[in-house]
Amino acid sequence: MTEKKIGGAGLRGQSAGATALCTVGQKGTGLTYRGYDVRDLADNTSFEEVAYLILYGELPTRSQLDAYIQRLKGMRDLPQPLREVLERIPKDAHPMDVMRTGASMLGNLETETDFSQQQDVADRLLAVFPSIINYWYRYSHDGVRIDPNTDDDSIGGHFLHLLHGKPASQLHADVMNVSLILYAEHEFNASTFTARVCASTLSDMHSCVTGAIGSLRGPLHGGANEAAMAMIEQWSSPEEARRELKAMLDRKDKVMGFGHAIYRESDPRNAVIKGWSKKLADDVGDTTLYPVSEAVEQMMWDEKKLFANADFFHASAYHFMGIPTKLFTPIFVMSRLTGWAAHVMEQRENNRIIRPSADYVGPELREVTPIDQRG
Amino acid sequence: MTEKKIGGAGLRGQSAGATALCTVGQKGTGLTYRGYDVRDLADNTSFEEVAYLILYGELPTRSQLDAYIQRLKGMRDLPQPLREVLERIPKDAHPMDVMRTGASMLGNLETETDFSQQQDVADRLLAVFPSIINYWYRYSHDGVRIDPNTDDDSIGGHFLHLLHGKPASQLHADVMNVSLILYAEHEFNASTFTARVCASTLSDMHSCVTGAIGSLRGPLHGGANEAAMAMIEQWSSPEEARRELKAMLDRKDKVMGFGHAIYRESDPRNAVIKGWSKKLADDVGDTTLYPVSEAVEQMMWDEKKLFANADFFHASAYHFMGIPTKLFTPIFVMSRLTGWAAHVMEQRENNRIIRPSADYVGPELREVTPIDQRG
Repeated sequence: MTEKKIGGAGLRGQSAGATALCTVGQKGTGLTYRGYDVRDLADNTSFEEVAYLILYGELPTRSQLDAYIQRLKGMRDLPQPLREVLERIPKDAHPMDVMRTGASMLGNLETETDFSQQQDVADRLLAVFPSIINYWYRYSHDGVRIDPNTDDDSIGGHFLHLLHGKPASQLHADVMNVSLILYAEHEFNASTFTARVCASTLSDMHSCVTGAIGSLRGPLHGGANEAAMAMIEQWSSPEEARRELKAMLDRKDKVMGFGHAIYRESDPRNAVIKGWSKKLADDVGDTTLYPVSEAVEQMMWDEKKLFANADFFHASAYHFMGIPTKLFTPIFVMSRLTGWAAHVMEQRENNRIIRPSADYVGPELREVTPIDQRG
Repeated sequence: MTEKKIGGAGLRGQSAGATALCTVGQKGTGLTYRGYDVRDLADNTSFEEVAYLILYGELPTRSQLDAYIQRLKGMRDLPQPLREVLERIPKDAHPMDVMRTGASMLGNLETETDFSQQQDVADRLLAVFPSIINYWYRYSHDGVRIDPNTDDDSIGGHFLHLLHGKPASQLHADVMNVSLILYAEHEFNASTFTARVCASTLSDMHSCVTGAIGSLRGPLHGGANEAAMAMIEQWSSPEEARRELKAMLDRKDKVMGFGHAIYRESDPRNAVIKGWSKKLADDVGDTTLYPVSEAVEQMMWDEKKLFANADFFHASAYHFMGIPTKLFTPIFVMSRLTGWAAHVMEQRENNRIIRPSADYVGPELREVTPIDQRG
């Protein structure tokens, strides 16, 4: 059945469908959501506006936004059985496994039985993910059963409030807002494509999102900012960073947070988050992590012509806000949920089951040998 | 970035990689697992031999098989936190959501931290899925906390034993064995492809399998045997079946269990399961369901030139063994886990992240309008 060969492995450069959600790597813009440059959105909107744009198609008016914020604030609570499930996940679990299990469990309790519910399910997941990860984190690490309801208007502020047990500063809420905008959508990346393959069987939203979380968990996809953090926090000065990074490059070690599968010259998200990381460094009086990060960025460009991608300065930015490194990728989930859910809706609108072929490289036809004659 | 157009939507006829596991739709064989015709395997082997073949590469010798059976028997127990999670899933949940959540929760408790553990994780999932679904089913429906350990050698016999609370007859264990063989593997179908996309990010086995379950849940993929059952059990005679089916065809209703995306002339699995369904009908003295099924098969061929696929006679076969219709697709999971896990291992062996492109059909570049000027 296989007539056509792919250009590269991993379907690289192959179109697997149409989307109105996103462009990646187009000259002059780099990254757009429904036609808006992500830098324009990061400068001039809130994450709730961007979520509305991605999920509902257009930026909201003031009254639409106010109503949307109230709606999401009313969807933050956790059903009791889901709390009890989260309490049974050990402290040393992978936080992405917690997110995956939380999304899956919610599907048992609030099943999408009809596609007319898809917007509600997407909004609910958007509102509840900060509650899921923080309920588990605070219970397993601090023995505290948090109340997942706060009065914060923003999802980013709400997340930090639950994590730290107190309202976030305006600066921190602003950085979370920008971060969630930057990670919201990125075309047919592997986790989004997972969601679309699942959606193409006409499965439910929770299945699609649960599958996408599993793919984002992989170290080749999400997790680059965690790996970048693990690297930079080892170094106490730009000089040490340059020396050790040089040794890493000589050993041909992989350096996470640099380069990109699609972008060729730069990642448009880097300058944005870098600027905010600098503000945070100034705010906390940091004289180590930010200079180390800058030294690494410079050296990667000088030595390898590799640019920092969205993940690299996210590491220091999150760290400055007191976010434990292991929660970096769950924040990615809180943001990318918008893209995943919108792609699921788009796939459903004009669906054909995604079922590629394969090149067979196995044994020729053979007969079963009776078991006592094998070996 | 998108230069190449796909031949059809849904990547149909496009190669998305290489596999040594399976051929589908090749002349003269129809379906092979690692070079063996599925009919040869169904006639001459046990499901445990087939699972070993798919997961380890070759059919086992007698001593390898004996050791494998003992190994799997020792892996059937459920960790206490997983039991407690299953007890919190309501009776009216979708059983595939239960399987998905069970697989995901297990990933928190027995995380695959290194790919050297992949065979162990696959064997564990193979052994534990019948325990997961039956523990939930019996607890939520009958209020019973079952002991997930039985002394049955076969996975099929074990499943029926847990479900019915007594050892299965030889005939029933034999039918389950054949059924599990027939569903074990099917190349790059949507659930398997989901698993491979997830694996391509180098995520863990539980994430890949959890995602695959979510895709199999979709009505365009798994679930056709459930839909076939719902249809045929309405009819009390071949005459009524022919009359009502004719009306369905006139209304252009979709009839599940017929035709196939890849097979053109017949599904090689149909004759096998049909033969066993007939034996079960004779065994229970059925004079309705099997004749109705035969009448439907004949009429679908006469009127639409559509052949019964693997799912159609599975409906009556499972029903004759007292299996509730809602558990049909979870049985599919118990079997297909072998294929999914083997594809994950194969993807890992020669990996590139699966990241296709998309055709952009959205708005042109536009500037963010200040919120109070929108609308």
